[in-house]
Amino acid sequence: MQKNRQVVLASYASDAARVENFAMTESPIPQPGEGEFLIRNMYFSLEPAIRGWLDGKANYFPPIPIGGVIRGPSVGRVVASKNADFAPGDIVFALNHWEDYSICHSDAVLLEKLQPHGDTPISYYVGALGGAGATAYVGLHEIGKIQSGQTVVVSAAAGATGSMAGQIAKQRGCTVIGIVGSDEKAKLIVEQFGFDAAINYKTDDIAAAVLAIAPEGADIYFDNVGGPVLNAMLVAMKVYGRIVGCGMISDYNRTENPNPITNLWEVVARQLTMQGFLLFTYHDQVPAAQAQLTEWINQGKIKVIEHITKGIANTPAAFCELMSGKTTGKALVEVDLIELT
Amino acid sequence: MQKNRQVVLASYASDAARVENFAMTESPIPQPGEGEFLIRNMYFSLEPAIRGWLDGKANYFPPIPIGGVIRGPSVGRVVASKNADFAPGDIVFALNHWEDYSICHSDAVLLEKLQPHGDTPISYYVGALGGAGATAYVGLHEIGKIQSGQTVVVSAAAGATGSMAGQIAKQRGCTVIGIVGSDEKAKLIVEQFGFDAAINYKTDDIAAAVLAIAPEGADIYFDNVGGPVLNAMLVAMKVYGRIVGCGMISDYNRTENPNPITNLWEVVARQLTMQGFLLFTYHDQVPAAQAQLTEWINQGKIKVIEHITKGIANTPAAFCELMSGKTTGKALVEVDLIELT
Repeated sequence: MQKNRQVVLASYASDAARVENFAMTESPIPQPGEGEFLIRNMYFSLEPAIRGWLDGKANYFPPIPIGGVIRGPSVGRVVASKNADFAPGDIVFALNHWEDYSICHSDAVLLEKLQPHGDTPISYYVGALGGAGATAYVGLHEIGKIQSGQTVVVSAAAGATGSMAGQIAKQRGCTVIGIVGSDEKAKLIVEQFGFDAAINYKTDDIAAAVLAIAPEGADIYFDNVGGPVLNAMLVAMKVYGRIVGCGMISDYNRTENPNPITNLWEVVARQLTMQGFLLFTYHDQVPAAQAQLTEWINQGKIKVIEHITKGIANTPAAFCELMSGKTTGKALVEVDLIELT
Repeated sequence: MQKNRQVVLASYASDAARVENFAMTESPIPQPGEGEFLIRNMYFSLEPAIRGWLDGKANYFPPIPIGGVIRGPSVGRVVASKNADFAPGDIVFALNHWEDYSICHSDAVLLEKLQPHGDTPISYYVGALGGAGATAYVGLHEIGKIQSGQTVVVSAAAGATGSMAGQIAKQRGCTVIGIVGSDEKAKLIVEQFGFDAAINYKTDDIAAAVLAIAPEGADIYFDNVGGPVLNAMLVAMKVYGRIVGCGMISDYNRTENPNPITNLWEVVARQLTMQGFLLFTYHDQVPAAQAQLTEWINQGKIKVIEHITKGIANTPAAFCELMSGKTTGKALVEVDLIELT
């Protein structure tokens, strides 16, 4: 009999998540109730935000209990449906779980029926055309109020969201500076993604490097990391600058002891706006973002780099690798579909 | 011969400003050049922001050099003019200096020709109808986007700006909670200023106290203090809440060692907007703010408490007293006009 393989929480993560915090279980494949539909998951989107649900504390969603299936965005194919809006064969994106089969309904968070473009790999809808791309697009436009000619700084710039944010800002006619954690990533974002400059936060003075390029400071800082990088950027912002609060990965592994921020006075002195956002609030803007990103990708103006791990059983290891900061591009898991009927 | 008494910087302040950091000097009364006018200062507005200019570092204005006259807002009377827009007898507010006589020109920061209302003491134009009142009004409306029915939390609530912010929010139909540093101030803001509740940050759990009154958290936090109070408020904000960054007095006395903020992740998780502002950016909105505040004050809807120190020579001591957190209401100096001709 066919089973639903699931990745569950074996123990709460305390600092960095470890593979021992996860376990594999199996359960019967669920059947959709009235209004529900069943998804065969094809790709899991690995995202730093998932770390926030692994330590038993609420973090804009309820925490995952011990034994609970790990929550995460996925792209999958509808295989059974009791919902008039979704039919078998539809490809959907939603906040599901790390499992072969997920039950979904019309109110699912981030739910979107995809209309895959003929030449576009389905996996792109997990990252560049999924949450990462839409987050970068919405963050720069809706929160950052991006305008041509501005100086935009992006942290975690070799990552899924950062690499998209930098490339979108280039398309908008901005000078784009990326902050990364290695010289290899610095080279990558300039040569592959077209950033104007790269800063290695481990070896460079961030504020000095930004001000050397933009003496008045950055108009927009797209913050994926928080912590010391955010602290440094607070003294490298232009007056009236905007900080787009997208994520703070530097703190996700240290929930009991977050990095202290000491330069917050600059928010007043420089009259900055720091605004946090979560994509689901701007869900209605995702289709337009996706359409624009699809066009740019098909025109070759935006490049997509993926870091694909194969096999559902390797999901915990792939997630821990993402959180170590060693990956570049969009981290995702391609579910082994051997049991797909 | 008549002299211009001036309070100058004798030494840089290193933590709390001390009276020894200041000295009195005398110089000849300056004469206005073309386009300038001479002001006989009547009141100095003592403001925490002045602390930021006393340690030799730029802080949205250049630092005051050793021997330099202390910069600060004043209300005074024009006594000589070579500027067609200002005539002897005019009462003006501007960012001047701690001295008997200041030279002013049309581009002076915060410059405003006052039209004192018959029943309104001139001193009110230093605080409730001056920078403090206008800052509170602009901060709540322009930055906080205040709406009737919201929960508004104000820190330094017994102070010049805080007491006005709380009373303005009451006029806008909000539930208003004030954060203060003593039980006496807690009593004052409820009984005199009409706040709905008061929190003593030295003895109460700020976040718990706010959430007990407003279970979903505060819509607006009007922050005058930064530091631990801001850190606590970050976990007491409603989703999409707005933090009005007006000042961070808790750090002004500790510029080398600001209070660390560890809860900034909440900006992302709760999708908060934290926006700093300085009044001079919104100078065009001051007349409308002043008109509304004058009406409320004359109707008895807003109360004004002043803490007046007499004599220019007592200005340093009065400033240090303000920074100690012991005063309530608007701290100002009434310049001894014995030499006024």
